[in-house]
Amino acid sequence: MATARLWTDEDVARSPRVKAVFDDIRSTRKTDFVNNFWRALANQPAVLERTWTSVKEIMVAPGILDPLTKEMIYIAVSATNACTYCVHSHTAAARAKGMTNEQHEELIAIIGMANETNALSSALQIPVDKEFEVV
Amino acid sequence: MATARLWTDEDVARSPRVKAVFDDIRSTRKTDFVNNFWRALANQPAVLERTWTSVKEIMVAPGILDPLTKEMIYIAVSATNACTYCVHSHTAAARAKGMTNEQHEELIAIIGMANETNALSSALQIPVDKEFEVV
Amino acid sequence: MATARLWTDEDVARSPRVKAVFDDIRSTRKTDFVNNFWRALANQPAVLERTWTSVKEIMVAPGILDPLTKEMIYIAVSATNACTYCVHSHTAAARAKGMTNEQHEELIAIIGMANETNALSSALQIPVDKEFEVV
Amino acid sequence: MATARLWTDEDVARSPRVKAVFDDIRSTRKTDFVNNFWRALANQPAVLERTWTSVKEIMVAPGILDPLTKEMIYIAVSATNACTYCVHSHTAAARAKGMTNEQHEELIAIIGMANETNALSSALQIPVDKEFEVV
Amino acid sequence: MATARLWTDEDVARSPRVKAVFDDIRSTRKTDFVNNFWRALANQPAVLERTWTSVKEIMVAPGILDPLTKEMIYIAVSATNACTYCVHSHTAAARAKGMTNEQHEELIAIIGMANETNALSSALQIPVDKEFEVV
Amino acid sequence: MATARLWTDEDVARSPRVKAVFDDIRSTRKTDFVNNFWRALANQPAVLERTWTSVKEIMVAPGILDPLTKEMIYIAVSATNACTYCVHSHTAAARAKGMTNEQHEELIAIIGMANETNALSSALQIPVDKEFEVV
Repeated sequence: MATARLWTDEDVARSPRVKAVFDDIRSTRKTDFVNNFWRALANQPAVLERTWTSVKEIMVAPGILDPLTKEMIYIAVSATNACTYCVHSHTAAARAKGMTNEQHEELIAIIGMANETNALSSALQIPVDKEFEVV
Repeated sequence: MATARLWTDEDVARSPRVKAVFDDIRSTRKTDFVNNFWRALANQPAVLERTWTSVKEIMVAPGILDPLTKEMIYIAVSATNACTYCVHSHTAAARAKGMTNEQHEELIAIIGMANETNALSSALQIPVDKEFEVV
Repeated sequence: MATARLWTDEDVARSPRVKAVFDDIRSTRKTDFVNNFWRALANQPAVLERTWTSVKEIMVAPGILDPLTKEMIYIAVSATNACTYCVHSHTAAARAKGMTNEQHEELIAIIGMANETNALSSALQIPVDKEFEVV
Repeated sequence: MATARLWTDEDVARSPRVKAVFDDIRSTRKTDFVNNFWRALANQPAVLERTWTSVKEIMVAPGILDPLTKEMIYIAVSATNACTYCVHSHTAAARAKGMTNEQHEELIAIIGMANETNALSSALQIPVDKEFEVV
Repeated sequence: MATARLWTDEDVARSPRVKAVFDDIRSTRKTDFVNNFWRALANQPAVLERTWTSVKEIMVAPGILDPLTKEMIYIAVSATNACTYCVHSHTAAARAKGMTNEQHEELIAIIGMANETNALSSALQIPVDKEFEVV
Repeated sequence: MATARLWTDEDVARSPRVKAVFDDIRSTRKTDFVNNFWRALANQPAVLERTWTSVKEIMVAPGILDPLTKEMIYIAVSATNACTYCVHSHTAAARAKGMTNEQHEELIAIIGMANETNALSSALQIPVDKEFEVV
């Protein structure tokens, strides 16, 4: 499956624009492995460049939130969207950053419960408390 | 709005079953304020009891993830589901637990980006890399 | 709010095409009240006609599922989609068709739980059992 | 696929906590077959216990809604969430509880139409009629 | 996979009601190929008829929007819903109607960005500007 | 409502970083009006800058798709996500770019139908035809 071709390293070598991004992914992540997300985006070079730039700024550059927390937030969004690829890739990334089974268990529990109470709130159309409003 | 009546404290006082939950919410949270979510669920006592029990276990009881991280994961799910009530209540909860503007900014950035790359992955139907599979 | 004008009865009277649908809604439902959904769709006459025809076939015409069960299924979809208008209108419709508080409570519980286990399944990317496949 | 290992019966036998839940699933359902949902949740024993307890209360214990109606509501949520696993497992469960092709057809029709009118309502941002508000 | 049987041409030949729709699909599209969507809906003849009638009116009949624009809008919805089947079938349809790689790239970029800003708006619960309200 | 403060022009004037973005929005759009989306994002300057840069590249810069088509695709995503703010702002933008009632009607019809057939496909878990696979 895939609605666009996945670029092989040979394909990448023929496009200086795509190659520049792939080189940066490899040197930033310190690994030769480039996952299919980038190989599919290679068909859309402008999207590829913009997405990688954002990923570097948001997920890779040092911030206040630690890298594992960021990945767990990413998993929460991906599971809620039922995004098969994203759940797989970010769970693998979280594990690579040290997520333990116990942390995964707590994460899963929160994701499940949040989706449950979101649905309850929507089914009951609960009005927002004044206490929660930002003046 | 609301598709079910919000229980006042007088209503609650007349139902021992609901009152027991409200008392526990108040003593657990050390505040007299009980937000509308619980006042709407009071119409469904079994759902009220089960939901509060789960919230206590998952969000209140000490775990490995710290309370603020849990709230940020909750916000990520709620924003993805476009749940107005839940985004408001859990953003307020995260702020009460010390979330700074800088942390909120990083959280917002991840939520936005994850929803973007989820959509890109779905639009391209990217196949999962073998490297991400759990044996 | 609304991104399109809501038609008043005076507006409707000036458009034979829209009036025909409104007349049929009123005679089918045996009430003069026509809710905002149809007043917004009046701006799109072809959509108005097609939607009302489908609603009559699916929700009004006698079928195997009873009318209240149909409304509860509608509420389940609407709550999952966080559709404010739809949750309100179909909860009102379910109550008009006799939904009791006890039935609403069970419905709410199932909606919450289904959204929870859906999220758990997505987060864990659980493979479908062979036993569930249709040959 | 799966982002967590599926527990075999041998794995289950080694964990008294997980085994207790699996034993209860088997005796409650009167079958030796335990589907992958529970085999994946076995990695998260607290989530496993809490989820099974809820499923028993909501879906198995006698209530006002009959078991087949409950499963159809579950399917409606699962299809709306595009949850592959859940649609498969609950459609199989509904069939096991007697869902006929005719009932499936009506269910499918309502799910499709509800998602359509939800989208129309969201696209037009239709305001809720006062008649639908709960005082 | 599939929760309902896919009808073969032999099955179709045995049901005059289903055959009439398949014949119309083939003559309208000027191809003998009928994709799985219709082969699954064949189990629900009323849904099959109603859906094909709507598809003909909305997607096939000449309108103001050109056929390729219609398919791109369809892809945008399908990617947002994470509908594997729909993304595949409508991307193929868009390509058959002449969608170039450059158009696909712009479409992908908009889908990604819209999902990102939707999530930002939901996370921040931004109030609608008065300027956007329809009087 | 809003979970973050909306910046007034006075607030903006005090932050050179935010002011630079607002100035660019105003000169690019040739209007003094800056809508609430940007006033909320002003609390997150890095997100504000990155989002505006992307909007300029994707929605404002000349591309292959015309500006109105882009807005209609944006509306399709926003309606599917039930994003109140986004549906309002992009419907207003589409009208400002010349969207007629007839175009809006066709757009609405496609959005409704795509969400319906997405749900049908998910409910039936239809397997992708080989003909739709990209080699």
